[in-house]
Order: sequence, then C-alpha cells, then structure tokens
Amino acid sequence: MSQPAKTVTACIIVIGNEILSGRTRDANIQYFATELGQLGVRVMECRVVPDIEETIVATVNEVRRKFDYVFTTGGIGPTHDDITADCIAKAFGVGISEHPEAVARMTRHYGDPALFTPARRRMARVPHGGILVDNPVSVAPGFQLENVFIFAGIPKVAEAMFQSMRHRLVGGTPVLSRTVRTNLPEGIIAEPLGALQQRYQDLDIGSYPAFRNGKPSVSLVLRGTDEPRLVAAAAELIETIHGMRGEAEEFAQ
Amino acid sequence: MSQPAKTVTACIIVIGNEILSGRTRDANIQYFATELGQLGVRVMECRVVPDIEETIVATVNEVRRKFDYVFTTGGIGPTHDDITADCIAKAFGVGISEHPEAVARMTRHYGDPALFTPARRRMARVPHGGILVDNPVSVAPGFQLENVFIFAGIPKVAEAMFQSMRHRLVGGTPVLSRTVRTNLPEGIIAEPLGALQQRYQDLDIGSYPAFRNGKPSVSLVLRGTDEPRLVAAAAELIETIHGMRGEAEEFAQ
Repeated sequence: MSQPAKTVTACIIVIGNEILSGRTRDANIQYFATELGQLGVRVMECRVVPDIEETIVATVNEVRRKFDYVFTTGGIGPTHDDITADCIAKAFGVGISEHPEAVARMTRHYGDPALFTPARRRMARVPHGGILVDNPVSVAPGFQLENVFIFAGIPKVAEAMFQSMRHRLVGGTPVLSRTVRTNLPEGIIAEPLGALQQRYQDLDIGSYPAFRNGKPSVSLVLRGTDEPRLVAAAAELIETIHGMRGEAEEFAQ
Repeated sequence: MSQPAKTVTACIIVIGNEILSGRTRDANIQYFATELGQLGVRVMECRVVPDIEETIVATVNEVRRKFDYVFTTGGIGPTHDDITADCIAKAFGVGISEHPEAVARMTRHYGDPALFTPARRRMARVPHGGILVDNPVSVAPGFQLENVFIFAGIPKVAEAMFQSMRHRLVGGTPVLSRTVRTNLPEGIIAEPLGALQQRYQDLDIGSYPAFRNGKPSVSLVLRGTDEPRLVAAAAELIETIHGMRGEAEEFAQ
C-alpha cells in the first residue's frame, strides 16, 4: 500500500495595477505554480490585486490562514507605488524598519553612497520579524514573515528569489501527471472520460481543448500522487480512444 | 470643469486547475482587462480558482456583490470537470436546465443527431434566468446572470464571446494613460516621481522596471480620466528626466 498523500497548499498574490490594466501579462503565476508543484506544494488559488493598501492587507490576512504558504509578487521597489512591505507589516500588526543586513548588502552593492539614495534605502525596510530572501539579480532582498513570502514582481528577479529560498519549503506528496492528447472532440470522449474518472476517484482528470496549428485538439490530463494508478488510467484511456478510432499521444507530464 | 469621473468596476474569475498547476499560462486576464479598460470598466481584482464547487460558489457570491461586473472564464465544456454552470446556479440559488434556444442552435450546428451527444447537450444547460451570450466560434453559448458573465476558457472562444456581448456593458469614464520610458533607474527617478504623484493626486502614477534587450529600463505609467492633466504631468516628468540627463520616450498609452 502506498502512503496516504499529504497535501501542502499555497496561494499566490500578484500585486500590481499593471496586470489589472492589461498593460502587462502576468508570468509569475505559471512559474511559481510549476516550481511549487515539483516541490509537492499545490497552488490552490491566485489573486491579482491592485496597489491599494486595504485590499492587500485584507487579502494577505485572509489567505495566510487558509493556505500553508503564501507568495506575493510585486510592489517592493523604491517608488511611491511600492507599498507591499508596509502592507505586510500592517497585516501582521508589526512595525517596519531598515534591516541591518539588507542595508549592508545594498551599501556594498551601490558603493558610492550618493547612489544609495533615500528611495533605494526604502527597499531595505523589512517588517519586524522578517527573514530575508536573497536577491541574486538586483540585491534588494525579499523577505519571509511566518508562512508568507514576499518577492519582486519582475519575473527575472522573482524567479531568482524563489530559487534562493526553495529549500525552506516543506512540500507534501508530489503530484504527478500524464497527458493524453487526442484528435477526438471533447463531446465524443466526454462520456468514457467521465466513467474513467468514476473508476479512478483518487486521480484528478481534466480535459483541455485547444487549437493546435488551427485544428481542434484535446489534452486529457491525469493528475495524482500514485504513479502506478496514473499509468494504469492513462493506458485504459488510450485503449478507449483507439477503440473509438481516435489518435492518442501520451506525454509523461 | 470636467465631469466628475464615474467608476465602474469588474472582477475576473479564471476557473481551471490547468492554470493553478502551471500547465497553462492564462491569457484571458490580459485580454479582458484591456478590452474592459477601453469600455471604461476597471478590473479591480482577479481570482484564479480550482474546479472545486465550494470555492467557485463562494468566490462568485463574494465578488458579484463587491464589483459592478464579474466575468468568469473556463469550465463550461462537455466533460465531467466542467462544473461552472452548475456552480453559478448554486451561487444564485436557482435551478438549471436545457435552454431551448441553446438546444436549437446546437441541434442546427451538429446536424446529425448522433453527434449531438449527451455530453454536448450538457453545454445547453443554463441556470434559470440566464441570458445567452453568443459563441461565434463553437456555438455552445455562454450566459449572463445579473451582473455575472460566464465565458469559455479557450482564449479564442472567450474573446469571440466577449465581442458578441460587449455592447451590453455600461462603462464609466474611460481611463486614459501615457507612458514615459526612461533609462534612469527607479532608485534615481523615485523621489521626483513621488513628488509628481503628490502634485497630481487625481492621477495614478506607476513605475514598472523591466529588462529590455538585456538592459534595465523603467516605464513610468500615468493613468487618469482627464486628458489635459495627463498631458501636463507627462510633460513635467519628461522635463524632470531631461534635467537629470536621462533619456525619455513618450507613448500615448
């Protein structure tokens, strides 16, 4: 018998008017979701919120109690619209001030004191109790308060920050997946697929139609923690598709 | 004097495990946010939620009271994991059954009754009181219940649905924007930028650093409803940047 699966959950909060205005297409959700999945942490929800203190504070306080981990991206730069650190302090009811190690790193980085402007010093401010998250790209650190991790919004920086702290995360049972891609339309495969889901209630079977090279195509994705069950279900599904004279191609993710 | 700005708000709910697992990068938020912005509807929040009834129902009921419009994408196909229509019925406390016009359209579309499978008939189910949203791509309609609009998840279909119903939306004062891109780093421009925001409190001034062709670059985005004020603030900003020996390039959005 396999071990019972342990579920560890996460929520991603994307902070930034630029996503809500449509100016920028978010890239961080997909990156974090993929990386966290590999660590056995399941992203259960994402929120995109504006640069409004009340909304950020309320969102953080709601989700940090609901999920094992919370990750925020955005709003920790040097400009007036960067209010994330202050919002996190407010959400946790703690003070905020310059973190000596952050100041030391940034002093080294900028060299000339004239370049370490008051605006840049703002980026050394960390809510009390915060643990630094390294920033190998542009030095000004992120930070962690309890189960909440605060990252930059620029994907390149956010990704580097994540890589620098991923060892702090304790994941649950990793979710494995297999994809069966078919040319059968959803409306034809739906019935046997639903029956398969009934027989494999420990798996999560999703159907994702798309246009590939202008032609409709369906990706049937099986997800679960027990590899032999996944393999068996995928084999059954392929047999079913072949029985319906469809084409099936399998991918190990 | 210009008219006082009227604010109309929206929330986008993206329903789908495929976004949360990192398998798919969402494209609908950016499309809807951009289109809605042009109609004078401001997206104030987005949620990405899993295919879990309890979460979908609670999220819809929370945000439909908070915002003027709610748009959902995903979960209205023919397979067992498509539970959005049932969740919407539950959220509104109404029944759900086949919509005669939806059935008629799909009957015409599929021609051969053998192709109009029970799975596909599921897509004709609409919560009672729902108004159809046309689907020019694949026929099975979306629908509207009060201020909540239900769209497909496939971007091509979601976009066509949006275009077919955009005339139903009543927007507020459109938000205009101007972007000033500069080579000055955020830490240098931050102080005068904050002062500019103080002088133009009716505008929303954001600073978005990025790497362009491997070099750091900052987009300073000014947003507001009063064009002369926007133009004046952008001109001041450009003058400030030039005074600091930086380069400034202006874009009318």
